[in-house]
Amino acid sequence: MLGMERMSNRRPRETAVTDAVTSIVAERGLDRVSVREVAAAAGVSIGTVQYYFPTKQQMLAAAYTEAVRRIRARLQALRLGPETRRNITLVLRELLPLDEQRRTETRVYLAFAAGAATSPSLAGIQQAVLTELHTELTGAFAVAWGDAATPARCRLAAHAAIALADGLALLAVTTTGWLRSRQLTAAVDLVLEALLSS
Amino acid sequence: MLGMERMSNRRPRETAVTDAVTSIVAERGLDRVSVREVAAAAGVSIGTVQYYFPTKQQMLAAAYTEAVRRIRARLQALRLGPETRRNITLVLRELLPLDEQRRTETRVYLAFAAGAATSPSLAGIQQAVLTELHTELTGAFAVAWGDAATPARCRLAAHAAIALADGLALLAVTTTGWLRSRQLTAAVDLVLEALLSS
Repeated sequence: MLGMERMSNRRPRETAVTDAVTSIVAERGLDRVSVREVAAAAGVSIGTVQYYFPTKQQMLAAAYTEAVRRIRARLQALRLGPETRRNITLVLRELLPLDEQRRTETRVYLAFAAGAATSPSLAGIQQAVLTELHTELTGAFAVAWGDAATPARCRLAAHAAIALADGLALLAVTTTGWLRSRQLTAAVDLVLEALLSS
Repeated sequence: MLGMERMSNRRPRETAVTDAVTSIVAERGLDRVSVREVAAAAGVSIGTVQYYFPTKQQMLAAAYTEAVRRIRARLQALRLGPETRRNITLVLRELLPLDEQRRTETRVYLAFAAGAATSPSLAGIQQAVLTELHTELTGAFAVAWGDAATPARCRLAAHAAIALADGLALLAVTTTGWLRSRQLTAAVDLVLEALLSS
């Protein structure tokens, strides 16, 4: 993912701009992002914002790439062990909004995902990270199921697992108190247990 | 859901306004909705839009309520039979973006759900419809599992089932060709089969 590598070499003012976009999206939603608001929140001029990001789409794409980079970094930092079922559980739990940081990240992810439904540039970023996660989970299901697994069934289970985690995250942050952290993890455990013993 | 009953008695110009909001959200996203754009698309004056909906939040809430009402109407029109597993499958499939109409509806739902993450009035509508669907699915899992079911397990399975369908819908409309219709229904079937035989 070339976009992500570029991010890590970013200059401080550029980072201040993407951080400002992320904060506005998390607190007030994607529709409240404007060059003027972002410049004010980042403490830079409107011209500086436009220098780094000539269009609003480019600015949103950079902030989305940064949000995705953080989620990926957390996934890569997981201490995976020899037990595949536990590893799948750990990966899916990492995608759930179980603490305030991940609640914020989920709101940002959701806003950008909704944006991706009507924006090809955001959709490209969304698809790249999903494909990577899907490949890893497909491999994990193949190991967990052993000889009983067909490649198609493993791919399908990986799709279902990502959808479950994303759906739970969506439900948790768009309602108030309807789904508690304990229920989010229990729902993942219920489905994984059923899938892996089937 | 009082808001929904009010909708059905709505006047033609009010309906034209909410329909215009829905079209703009589906085609260009929630952030492109403005009183000016909506008035132009509905073929009414800005004053007319403001007469029915004094605030943008009220206008969005009315359009979301209408979108939810349509999904509910489709769910209620399903021909459910004596076989519970088939009924759960039918309900979840109805939530998937399997045709162009439902792809549009999903984009609208997703945009409003993302809005609900930062707007209490949209979150209230989201939660009301989810609670209703959750109650029905909890009852269906209780019947399907019979004596083996505990109330907590049925509620959890219903949460997981809604999350799965919502997550699949999110993934389908935010990527291009990553998940085909056949895979969406197969993913639902895989998880339901695993859950109901566990």
